[in-house]
Amino acid sequence: MNPTIDLLNSHRSIRAFTEQPVSQEIINTLVSSGQSAATSSFIQACTVIQIEDKSKRSKLAECAGNQKYVEQAPVFLVFCADMQRHKLACEMHDEEMMSGFTEQFTTATLDCGLFAQNVAIAAESLGLGVVYIGGIRNKIADVSDLLDLPDLVYPVFGMCIGYPDQAPEVKPRLPLAVVLKKDSYINVQDSTLMADYDNIIREYYRSRTGGNKEMSWSEQISGMLTKEARPHMLSYLQSRGYLLK
Amino acid sequence: MNPTIDLLNSHRSIRAFTEQPVSQEIINTLVSSGQSAATSSFIQACTVIQIEDKSKRSKLAECAGNQKYVEQAPVFLVFCADMQRHKLACEMHDEEMMSGFTEQFTTATLDCGLFAQNVAIAAESLGLGVVYIGGIRNKIADVSDLLDLPDLVYPVFGMCIGYPDQAPEVKPRLPLAVVLKKDSYINVQDSTLMADYDNIIREYYRSRTGGNKEMSWSEQISGMLTKEARPHMLSYLQSRGYLLK
Repeated sequence: MNPTIDLLNSHRSIRAFTEQPVSQEIINTLVSSGQSAATSSFIQACTVIQIEDKSKRSKLAECAGNQKYVEQAPVFLVFCADMQRHKLACEMHDEEMMSGFTEQFTTATLDCGLFAQNVAIAAESLGLGVVYIGGIRNKIADVSDLLDLPDLVYPVFGMCIGYPDQAPEVKPRLPLAVVLKKDSYINVQDSTLMADYDNIIREYYRSRTGGNKEMSWSEQISGMLTKEARPHMLSYLQSRGYLLK
Repeated sequence: MNPTIDLLNSHRSIRAFTEQPVSQEIINTLVSSGQSAATSSFIQACTVIQIEDKSKRSKLAECAGNQKYVEQAPVFLVFCADMQRHKLACEMHDEEMMSGFTEQFTTATLDCGLFAQNVAIAAESLGLGVVYIGGIRNKIADVSDLLDLPDLVYPVFGMCIGYPDQAPEVKPRLPLAVVLKKDSYINVQDSTLMADYDNIIREYYRSRTGGNKEMSWSEQISGMLTKEARPHMLSYLQSRGYLLK
């Protein structure tokens, strides 16, 4: 429909990068674009930590389940939900911040999501490739220590950025009819639509792996969601001052 | 740096819209662009409900604290974090989903953030204006009832979309040095930088309101964060199957 929408629709995660460096000027441009995203009640609750230190990169790659590209990517950013500076703002006016509300966790986390998605799009518009790294939450307490995060700051996800050295296909998404509803949540026919979609994803994996992987979306999801999901998250977040009430 | 980055950097919330309608084709295009965003472990946990029904619009506007534009905007979308379809995927394979983990709340919420930000950018690339409506969380249980949301589906925020009938200034963001750090969370000098920024925001409000409003960022934040933040959120989310462990 236009070049920006074409860009959005051509997103795929990039996990292999050329050695071409990305200048600090470009990184600053990306982060500024991130700041331009909407922010809940203007809280601006996202802080980005750019990881240059090789030994920290290597430890982060390990925390993320040995994802080598965390070490190898020209740029690795950690997006943190940050309400520490709000505590400071309150102190500047001799006020005490009321923290710990689930609502605050939600808005600070969403601020990071909107911010990071702008960074991703800005990067892709410059011919760079990106991949989000949720895996740093595997060992989120270690990551927090490594980056000296104070209370009220938690690492939401990382992002590898660099010039692509691979050209994977775009992965087909759920049918529009499953994700767009009118006036009410009606899930009639969702299982029929999902079965059709399962066939599409099975074919996508088959063609991408030369027949070595055959898995539908519902199989993949059911395999994943019958296991515990990072059960340490709640106690970790509470220890940082989030989700206390 | 390029037209996409210029677009990202020119974002401001639009709350007044012309009467020009937005076609269903465009709405579908926007939602498809939303689907193209990255999704945590391919969970695709965002469902959008397009609100056409006038009486529902009016109730939603009321829930959001009488924000008239929720009623008046040509398009109003509610973005829901949705793990109901994952429960269905598990059932399709005779498996029982393990739900309630804080990690799942986090990833489903982030999926909505990334998705919605793509919708916002796609809309702006077509000359439309948008505003996120977090206010629907004021009465989140009522909103859930109104939209017939089942367990494991919660309304994250709404979004008004339409052709702009106003041209507000871009609101200055925190200095880059506050939000971009290297290798470690270092907050030395943050209070000096924040004081400079406070002056910028005070001037922004002064010029925008013809001198009627003078408020710095830290004043605004400290005024807001010394009050409770939607204290009903935790018990509501737990009642929908989220944040139980």
